[in-house]
Amino acid sequence: MDTLSPEQLISRLQWRYATKEFDSQRKIPTDDWEKIEKSLVLTPSSFGLQPWKFITVTDQATKESLLEHSWHQRQVTDCSHMVVLCAKDTMDPADIEAWLDRLCTVRNVSRDTLEGYAGMMTGFFSNMSPEQTSAWAKNQVYIALGQLMTAAAVIGVDACPMEGIVPAEYDRLLGLDGSGFSTSVGCAMGYRSAGDKYADLPKVRYSSSQVIENC
Amino acid sequence: MDTLSPEQLISRLQWRYATKEFDSQRKIPTDDWEKIEKSLVLTPSSFGLQPWKFITVTDQATKESLLEHSWHQRQVTDCSHMVVLCAKDTMDPADIEAWLDRLCTVRNVSRDTLEGYAGMMTGFFSNMSPEQTSAWAKNQVYIALGQLMTAAAVIGVDACPMEGIVPAEYDRLLGLDGSGFSTSVGCAMGYRSAGDKYADLPKVRYSSSQVIENC
Repeated sequence: MDTLSPEQLISRLQWRYATKEFDSQRKIPTDDWEKIEKSLVLTPSSFGLQPWKFITVTDQATKESLLEHSWHQRQVTDCSHMVVLCAKDTMDPADIEAWLDRLCTVRNVSRDTLEGYAGMMTGFFSNMSPEQTSAWAKNQVYIALGQLMTAAAVIGVDACPMEGIVPAEYDRLLGLDGSGFSTSVGCAMGYRSAGDKYADLPKVRYSSSQVIENC
Repeated sequence: MDTLSPEQLISRLQWRYATKEFDSQRKIPTDDWEKIEKSLVLTPSSFGLQPWKFITVTDQATKESLLEHSWHQRQVTDCSHMVVLCAKDTMDPADIEAWLDRLCTVRNVSRDTLEGYAGMMTGFFSNMSPEQTSAWAKNQVYIALGQLMTAAAVIGVDACPMEGIVPAEYDRLLGLDGSGFSTSVGCAMGYRSAGDKYADLPKVRYSSSQVIENC
């Protein structure tokens, strides 16, 4: 099965940057987009619970409506696909059961073999306040954001993560109110414009010795 | 520059799984490990602020000491490299200045060209409680976790994300108390044991239509 070499991986991560200017004429081909969606679906999560929803906005009028709630960053309107990553607000016993049902179906096991696992999950959430549960879900959504950006980089698709959005307005415009999910963060995706001067700026990170410790 | 095809990407994400049993005899080669560390360093973050520290534990006695604070999951001791991902506790004006200094040095620009950017960051944090700032930092750490797992998958290294750890005990054992950083989550890395039956189980995810919405 084809892998990248570690050197190739680093080249891809050096290639990527938070795209400031997308080529608004260039759209991600449908076949490729389906794989990117698949990569979102395959994101790992705590206990496997997938406490998220991903909204892909391609309708231009909808993208325009989001602009004023995105610090007017044109990536929202100029990108090919605007992904809005949403976290689940609560985790109820029914959510755990839904997940266990799915597990039983896909792996063809009976529910009673999963009692220990079910108990672990129930115990985990019983110790958490609603705020902690919602923060936990949001953390999982950020795993998805990390996987999405890396996945895009290794296949040559550009992305711009966007925390500078107004989640409540996104919720309203995307019909999330009352859905049990709330906007966490956005990620504009597509292809960089040839004129984006940010593409060539040196990447700025702290040195390894500043952020990595060995023991 | 070499990329994966979208199909190859999905194959890699299908290949990965939360490794339950590592081959404790097999270590990640130093050259490869350096690239994995580099991939951590290159993780994107909000404003570029990198509010994190990554601790790589390879010392066997230290790994053993973490075991009882990790729900006794043997991945901690059997993996090649145990990565502990830590979030910054606070974001002070000095942290923003340190980042701007770094930016000026690497891009060879003067500090006064960054006033607008500095103001945006200061404004962002001035509206946040200490709890919100710490949650923000933890979210960034989860981007790193997502990137780390995806990066590992595309180069053929196994990983097991570990939320089932006791952060306060990790902080104590790893000397983080008083450092300004706290343990968020772990990620054991190495190579799967040939006997790990979890490797062959079907991956369980909700369907695309359950987690993805288009508009």
